[in-house]
This record gives sequence, C-alpha cells and structure tokens, in this order.
Amino acid sequence: MGNRKSIRVLRIGHRYVRDYRTLTHLCLVARAFGAEAIYLEELDDGLLEGVKEVNEAWGGDFQVVRAPSWKKVVREAKEEGRLVIHLTMYGIPVQERVRKLAAHDRFLVVVGGPKVPGEVYQMADHNVAVTSQPHSEVAALAVMLHELQGGEELKKEFGHSRMKIIPSEKGKRVDRLT
Amino acid sequence: MGNRKSIRVLRIGHRYVRDYRTLTHLCLVARAFGAEAIYLEELDDGLLEGVKEVNEAWGGDFQVVRAPSWKKVVREAKEEGRLVIHLTMYGIPVQERVRKLAAHDRFLVVVGGPKVPGEVYQMADHNVAVTSQPHSEVAALAVMLHELQGGEELKKEFGHSRMKIIPSEKGKRVDRLT
Repeated sequence: MGNRKSIRVLRIGHRYVRDYRTLTHLCLVARAFGAEAIYLEELDDGLLEGVKEVNEAWGGDFQVVRAPSWKKVVREAKEEGRLVIHLTMYGIPVQERVRKLAAHDRFLVVVGGPKVPGEVYQMADHNVAVTSQPHSEVAALAVMLHELQGGEELKKEFGHSRMKIIPSEKGKRVDRLT
Repeated sequence: MGNRKSIRVLRIGHRYVRDYRTLTHLCLVARAFGAEAIYLEELDDGLLEGVKEVNEAWGGDFQVVRAPSWKKVVREAKEEGRLVIHLTMYGIPVQERVRKLAAHDRFLVVVGGPKVPGEVYQMADHNVAVTSQPHSEVAALAVMLHELQGGEELKKEFGHSRMKIIPSEKGKRVDRLT
C-alpha cells in the first residue's frame, strides 16, 4: 500500500457519442491507476453499468459522477484543497513539474478533448504536458497518475472481488469466487 | 536526448473496424513515447494517412508497418536481439520486472486486444502487467514505454517539423513554419 493520495479526475468535452470507447478507457484507467472518482459532463447508463460491473468483478468502489458544470467541480476541488492539474499538450513538460506536483496529497486531474474551453487554462493551478506531441488523453492520464503516485498505484489492492488475477509468467490464472 | 533505445511495437488482434480510434491512439502513443515503428496485422489507408500527417506536422519518421504474420514479426525481432515483452493484465507486475527489462536496449513490445492467441504468451520473453486490473492497452503501452526508457522519452526531439509547441504556463503557443 503506502499510497494515501486522494485523486479525482474530471473529463471536459462533449464528444461522447463518437467517442464512447475512449470515455470507457478513461474511466477504467482512472480506476486502475488509483483515482477515487471521475466526473463527466455527460454520461449514459451503459457506461455507468459497465464501470459498476468492473467494480463488482474486480473490486473497489470507483465512482463515475455526473457533473453538469465542470466549473463547479473545479471550484469545489480548490475549496477542498485539491491541486488542479490540467493535462494539455500545450502545457509545461511533466518532467519539469513532477517533483513539485507530487509533493501534494490531493488532486483534481483535468483531461480535455480537442475543444476544451479556454477558461480551463486559467482556472487550473498547473497546465502540464505529457510530451508536447499529439497522442491520447488516455495515455496522458495514465502517465500523470503514475507519476503523481510515484508508481505506488501499481500496488493498489482493490479489496473484496469476484475475480482476482494471480500474476503468471505464461498464460492466464484467475481466482474466481463462486 | 540521452535515449538510445530502439523500441518497436506490435499490435495483435483483428478488431479494427469497431476500434479505429483505439488503434489510432496506439499508433500516436507509440510515436510520442519514442518507438520507431508499430506493426499492425491489418491497416487501412485512413490510418496510414493520419500518421503520415502527424509526422509531417510534428516531425520524426515514425513508421506504421503492415505485418500479415505476427509470428514472423516476433521471430524476426528475436533474431535481431530484441527483447519481446507482451503486455497482458495476467502477467508479472511491471514494477517487479522493470529494472531487469530496462537494462536492455532493443525491444519489441506486444500489445494485444481481448482475443490474443495463446501462443503469444509462450513466444514472449516476458509477459508483463501494468496493473492486474482491466483498463486500456493504450495506457499500458504508454506506461511500459515510459518505464523502459526511464522517462527519457519525454525529452525526445522530433526534428524538423511544420509545427512545434512552446510549452506555456497558460494557454497555447505553437511555432508554425510558414
């Protein structure tokens, strides 16, 4: 364990219809890499149900939260003392900031699509780039969460679950609670 | 710079039609995180064109290579002295292997979809898990490439390009060659 950080994720942008799979990946990456919750401006029952099933099968109580106003989520995070980090390829390289950022314990990590409102850049405490190249918000989120927790998130235990992987050199081993 | 590793990526699995976006993200993550090339079993002109445009705009000569036989790619990689790392949630946790793996200089990193043939587990030198939780092959690839290169990939220069980001505290700055 050893990981006592509290991390929440906010996804900004209304592109879900064409991008359902990316959104699912964002939720599962947030969960697998130790965040408590993800806020989404829009969500549908399929997505909620999917994440619920993953929690039931694999453990933990990761939350998907509907957030009609992203600004409210950012403001409340600041009031709670969370550091607000906006991931953007235009920001300061993560490797130049990671030490300073990882000294904090409570975060809101904001992930945007291509049409992020300009105000996000102003409201965030830090605008941070995971490479200054175009790639994937899913990958940027994973690397950011990994760096903020110094790799401790990889050891996270998800508690009671129906299935649990037994790591193997070759092949697949899964403990199944019946 | 300082990064002298040679990394190629192989994507196994025939699910492209439903999963075009994930495939694009895999290509862009491989490129942004310092790989030289990605091998795909199937590809279409749109994807090739998209990556070509990213290279032209943002630099570098990342290659997308059609590979009708994944086994041939794995065999040739081994003949070339590449360490073959298969990313799978069923594998050995990355944090237990990363030191040993990162001591090598030449890699083939294999990324699978849900229906990976069982032989991959046998042919790979290492089956490695980036968390033992379900999430995203895009995220797993990013974290693996990040760990193999000890973060050096974040400093990679992409050479001559039409556009180049000037990292900013707030907002967007792009140098455009006209």
